[in-house]
Order: sequence, then structure tokens, then C-alpha cells
Amino acid sequence: MIHTITKLSVRDVRFPTSLDQHGSDAMHTDPDYSAAYVVIDTDNGLKGYGLTFTVGRGTEIVVCAVHALSGLIVGKSLEDIIRDFRGFYRTLTSDGQMRWIGPEKGVIHLATAAVLNAVWDLWARTEGKPLWKLLVDMDPKQIISCIDFRYITDALTEQEALDILMKAQEGKQQREGQMLEEGYPAYTTSCAWLGYSDQQLKKLCTDALASGWTRFKVKVGADLQDDKRRCSLIRQMIGPTNTLMIDANQRWDVGEAITWTSSLAEYKPLWIEEPTCPDDILGHATISKALAPLGIGVATGEQCHNRVMFKQFLQASALQFVQIDSCRLGSVNENLAVLLMAHKFQVPVCPHAGGVGLCELVQHLILFDYISVSANLDNRMCEYVDHLHEHFTSPVVIRNAHYMTPKDPGYSCEMFESSVQAHQYPEGETWKKLLKK
Amino acid sequence: MIHTITKLSVRDVRFPTSLDQHGSDAMHTDPDYSAAYVVIDTDNGLKGYGLTFTVGRGTEIVVCAVHALSGLIVGKSLEDIIRDFRGFYRTLTSDGQMRWIGPEKGVIHLATAAVLNAVWDLWARTEGKPLWKLLVDMDPKQIISCIDFRYITDALTEQEALDILMKAQEGKQQREGQMLEEGYPAYTTSCAWLGYSDQQLKKLCTDALASGWTRFKVKVGADLQDDKRRCSLIRQMIGPTNTLMIDANQRWDVGEAITWTSSLAEYKPLWIEEPTCPDDILGHATISKALAPLGIGVATGEQCHNRVMFKQFLQASALQFVQIDSCRLGSVNENLAVLLMAHKFQVPVCPHAGGVGLCELVQHLILFDYISVSANLDNRMCEYVDHLHEHFTSPVVIRNAHYMTPKDPGYSCEMFESSVQAHQYPEGETWKKLLKK
Repeated sequence: MIHTITKLSVRDVRFPTSLDQHGSDAMHTDPDYSAAYVVIDTDNGLKGYGLTFTVGRGTEIVVCAVHALSGLIVGKSLEDIIRDFRGFYRTLTSDGQMRWIGPEKGVIHLATAAVLNAVWDLWARTEGKPLWKLLVDMDPKQIISCIDFRYITDALTEQEALDILMKAQEGKQQREGQMLEEGYPAYTTSCAWLGYSDQQLKKLCTDALASGWTRFKVKVGADLQDDKRRCSLIRQMIGPTNTLMIDANQRWDVGEAITWTSSLAEYKPLWIEEPTCPDDILGHATISKALAPLGIGVATGEQCHNRVMFKQFLQASALQFVQIDSCRLGSVNENLAVLLMAHKFQVPVCPHAGGVGLCELVQHLILFDYISVSANLDNRMCEYVDHLHEHFTSPVVIRNAHYMTPKDPGYSCEMFESSVQAHQYPEGETWKKLLKK
Repeated sequence: MIHTITKLSVRDVRFPTSLDQHGSDAMHTDPDYSAAYVVIDTDNGLKGYGLTFTVGRGTEIVVCAVHALSGLIVGKSLEDIIRDFRGFYRTLTSDGQMRWIGPEKGVIHLATAAVLNAVWDLWARTEGKPLWKLLVDMDPKQIISCIDFRYITDALTEQEALDILMKAQEGKQQREGQMLEEGYPAYTTSCAWLGYSDQQLKKLCTDALASGWTRFKVKVGADLQDDKRRCSLIRQMIGPTNTLMIDANQRWDVGEAITWTSSLAEYKPLWIEEPTCPDDILGHATISKALAPLGIGVATGEQCHNRVMFKQFLQASALQFVQIDSCRLGSVNENLAVLLMAHKFQVPVCPHAGGVGLCELVQHLILFDYISVSANLDNRMCEYVDHLHEHFTSPVVIRNAHYMTPKDPGYSCEMFESSVQAHQYPEGETWKKLLKK
């Protein structure tokens, strides 16, 4: 059966999370978790849903970019696309005119992610499988055919990528069974946003411990004394054996990152996340080298804008934890490239999640990584933030601090139509009320 | 006198250059040179004009981004802005919500460039000076106060930057006099676009030699045999002492860039431009190292998206020629940072120009570089392309292959209102006719 894409629609959906300081950090002090939300229609009634995550103002720019890309997809059939997915990926990312305003970065790449996430969702639905299962069952050669290797062959060739996937065929079924039973380990960022009071921190931490959480992330970077107090408080509450991670959200220059993080070493963080500019590969390498003797790794990736940047972070030993993002890279296609490179360089992948929909999406990618690529759970965990899941038709399920393996067909990013309509910016009910004030 | 900004307007202006293959290269096969064109109005009638360059489709996305930024500028006075220009720069680039869709890259940064270019134009007009002269006459401390040093202090501190400017005070007047008399050396890209026939090449090259040109750039990268034929033809025509440069516009992976360029070494190119992905710092470093024994340098920058990327290119010895762009970086502010870093690392700056308006704008920056920073013309020249200058009220003047120093107040990016209206997309007369076909 052929599924021809007859229509692509995109909406600007925003949740007023800044009202309660949810998601606040050193650089994003008032985020309204938002999405450019894409629906593609086919001639036989099946739909695909996709999104890219944003934090409020500027979402309309991404929506504009999705409109610009839609001409490249409407009229095509899903079967045409997946027959040469690498070619289609390049059609979107290397349009002779639009590539100028990227290429493969920023607004236009976020839009590419939203559109391709919808295509992958549609594909998984046509197969009646959750996305992770579609990937796990796929022939390794077909996986490879979805990846654009342009600009990364000096780090990973097609043949090397294929070899990695072939080798991981061994034990795949056992790992799939394990995931279906236990789920994928998670950590929580919900306890310690920068805008929260100490009292809030304590309460949330107590609750999280009671629910079985063992890995906690704390936002830092605005004020060193505050950071010490907060890290000390959390470390006391979680005890010496549980895991603490800290996240500066790009607040520092290179030298400052080293001295500030060193001052927090006594709280034994596993990693410092985003210590400086996300573009600064060499800076991260310098920081990694300086912090290694303290046992602190560097984690980054949520604003690492494409596979070429990840390639260099790996080549330069500039990170010790790869934080892929389901909506900043060019969808599943580009994330596959990063997962395979990370495996080659033997660096663990710990996905970025949270926001709106990121947990729903990225769980599929990390399941595929464990079952079909890395076969390894050492120092690996997926971020979890307890926000806004109620707006999704197949929300993530967390049990005992693990992501339960999703079973519904698709990529888990369909939102309830009522949620979308209520939160459309600026015409939805939620915003009409807020903007009237 | 206070100049309060009362209005910011932006228009999508496109020239159908793809009809004649002007500007065609290995990756941009059908560019329609375009601009997001900004006009800011003040309460006392003075206006500022700015633009960012694009190549057709997608310009509407940049226009959308300019609208999003306009709320951060309308209502402010020019005097408020320049009193803390560094702070204002950061207001635009680090908005707590909009930075997510960059930060400082792609669409949102192109929009920042357009807006700030208009602010600088306005500033120069209030002083009755061309922009280069405004900069040259400015107190070094004020220059420094326009630059955001965030993320670059590991390569260049404020004090080092100030020292560079102070040191270059010596001989400044003499250099200014020299520029007013001779102008700044240029090279031409107009002879050898990829879409041109050999016959066109020959004719254009003959004409250029007759007009005094001594430096020529050829587009390569689509087909090696074609490249050999074209380079051989041009080298024959210009003789052994004139300068040849080649430009691949990002066509290759790292390994291929080295072998392909090595195959063209016999034509003695001064540089290979954009051999691979503009994000690939380490790749460019590998290529630079491999080509150094052949006497071929690496040039890049027109798609280098911010000062943090330039910093790393310099730190890694990944380029031998810095090609700043007036419209991709965050206007004059960020270009000042790059000029100062390039000077510290002793790498010559050879600006990217062409498109629409890029020659008009960047001539000001390279004049400032010579007079107030580098005091050096060795291996330095500014790109020139003979296109679309007729649409500007103060077009560049080329004489004997030199940019004549501009004298009109401002940043030379005001377009004739009739040109703007005729080429507005899609409602201008030019497009109405073309789209009807």
C-alpha cells in the first residue's frame, strides 16, 4: 500500500511554564516550553505526528521554516522517501537556496527535525510498531541507507557503521527482552531547577528518593555560593552512593568553567553539563582535560547542532557523555549517525530530554542504542523531567526510575487535539486569558 | 540630540540571478541573490538601513526572525544603545527564549546582523561619517565596549584587544591617507562561476585583465576534469605571476578535499576556499596541514557562524585566510572581535563579498582593519563581484582593482526604494512577471 503525503500542517503550541519557573536555568530564565507541532496527512487517512522543541518566543520563526520545507515533502509518498531516505534527507538539508540560512543548524534544522520526526512517526505507524522496534527490526543495510555520511567519513565510514550494527546482532533478542521487562534507566532533573527555593528542592528530592530515583541533576552557574549550598543540600539528602550531576547551561567562559566546577568537586558530581558555549569544541576539550583528575566528566549535546559538531567533540575528546537530542539534530537519521560515532569512540550516550515531548521521543532512540548498537548500560541513563506528559496520547511511563518500553505504534509525539488547540499561540484559550491580563 | 527608534520595517527582496547562473557554485546551483532589508525610523526623521544576504527561498524565514527581534529595539534611542552596545548586543543574542533557536547561528543570527547593520548605519549617519571613518575615529575603549567577549576570553582578553588598538594608533593617519588615495586591494570572482562556459570565462578574464585585475578566483568541486580544464585555462590567461584562488563551496569530505586540491596544485592556487563543511574546524586543520607542503593555504569564513567558531579555527591553525562576512556574523560588533583575534593570531583577513550588498558593507570593515588594527596589506585583499551594485544609493567604486574609500555617511547599504519595490518577493513587478510564466 502506497501512502502519499497530501498535506502538512504546523502549529505554534506554547505552555506558560515560565509562570512557575519550571525549566529555569542560568541562561534560560523564563522558558515557556513550546513546540512547532507538525501533522502530515496521507491519501489513505493515516497521519504522522512530529515536533521540535522550543522555549517560547521564536517558535513562530520555526513554524515559518516548516512551511518553507513543506513544499519538498507534500506530494511525495512515504515509500519514495524511505526507498532513498539518505537522498530525501539531503533534499531537505541541502536545498540549493535554503541551505544558505543554515546549513544544518539553527531554525532551519529544527524545522527539518520536526518534519522528519513526523515522517518517522508515519513510517512506524504503517508498520504498526513503536519507532524503537521499527529500528531494531530493520536490516542493518537499511539503517545505513537512512544516514547522510557527508562530512563524517573521516571519523566513521559506511562500512564501519555497518560492522558495528552487524556485530550488535548478537544478543539483540536478549537485550530487547530485558528492556521490555526492566525498561531503560533514567535520571531526574525535576528536583532542582534554578528558580526553585531550598524548601521546594528538599520536598521534591524526598519524594523522588521515595519513588526510587538514584540519579539527580542540579542546575548551577548563576552564583557560586548558591550552587555550593544547593549541591551540598542535595548531596546530603541523596547520600554518598547515589549519583549527582550538575548543569551550567553554557554560563561560563573556559577558564571560569574550570575554576567554578573545581569548587564544586567536593560534592562529587559525575559530570558538568554545558560548561560553556555549545559551539566550543576546543574549549570543552580544555575543560575535560582539566577536570579529569577530579573525576568529573563533561557532558554536552542538547545544543550541539549537527553530526559534524558531534564528530569533532568525539575526535577531540571534548566530552565524556554524549547528550543527543531528538529535536535539534535532523531527526532519527542524524541521531543514528551520532549513536554510531559515539559507539566507535566508546563514549556513553545519555540523552537530553524534558521540555515538551523530548522524553516521549528520545526514549525510542536510546532503546535502539542499547539493543542494536552499544549493548552497554555502564554510565548510561536517559534524562527525565516530569512535565507536560499529560498532553500526549502515548505519554512516557516511568517505573522505579526507568523508562518503560513504549508499545504503541509510532514515535510517541501525537498530542491531544484539545491540548494543541488550547495552547496554540496566541489564539488558544490559555493564551487568550494570559495575554488579556 | 536624541534619536529614538520609532519603527523597524523589513522586506523580502530577491533578484532572479539564477536565470543567468550568476553566483552558481558546487553547492548553490541556482542562487537568487536576496536580502532581508531593514529600515529603522527615528523620531527626528533620520533613518538607518541594514540588510542580511540570502540566496532566495528562506528569505521569508529571516524576515520573520527580524520581526521577532524588532520588539527589542523599537522604543530605544540610539544613544541608549551605544552607551552600552555590548549589553544591547547581548540583549539581542541572548534573549532567554529566542536564544534556544540559535544561539548566535543560522536564521536568528542573520536577522541580528540585519538589525544591527541598520543601527550602525544610523550611528554613522548621525555623525555624518562613512562607517569606516566612524570606527577609525572612535576611542579604542569605545570600540572595545561594543564587543561581547563572552566565550572568547581564552583566546583574546579585553586588555589584549585594547593593547592591539592602542599600538595601531601609530601611523594611523598615514594609512588613512594611503587608503583615501589608493583604495583597498581587491580580487575578482566574477570571471569563473561554475555555470559559465569556457567561452564566457575567456571573455570575462580578458576584460578583467584589461581593467587591471591581478587576482582571480575560480569555482571548483563539481567535476575534477572540468576543474583542471578551467584552472589551466585561467592560469594560461593570467600568466604565472598573477594570483589564482580556488573555491569548492563545501563540496568535499576531508580526505577528498586533500586529494582533489592536490590534483590542482600544478595551477598554483594561493588558497582553497571552503574545502569542506564550514563547521568542521578539525577537518580544516587536517586539510591545512596536508596542503601546507604544496604551498596552498585554506580560506574559510563566509558560513562561519560566530566569533566562537572563528576563535577555534584560529586556535587550531585550521585556516590561513580569515574570510569575514558582514551579514552572517553579528554585524560590526562581532566582526570587530574577529578582526582583533585574527590580528593576535597573525592570520590575514580577506573578506567575503559579492551577493547583494556584501561588497558595499564589508569594504568599511576591511578599511578599519588596515588603518586601525593590522596595518598590513601582505596577502590581503577583499573579494569583489560585479553584481547588483546599481540598486544601491552609494555603490562601491572600483578603480584599478582597488575598492575606492567610501565617502558618503553611513554603512552604504541603502537601496533605491524603486529597486526594493520592484524586487519585493513575491509582490514586486519583477516577480509578478516571472511567476506568471
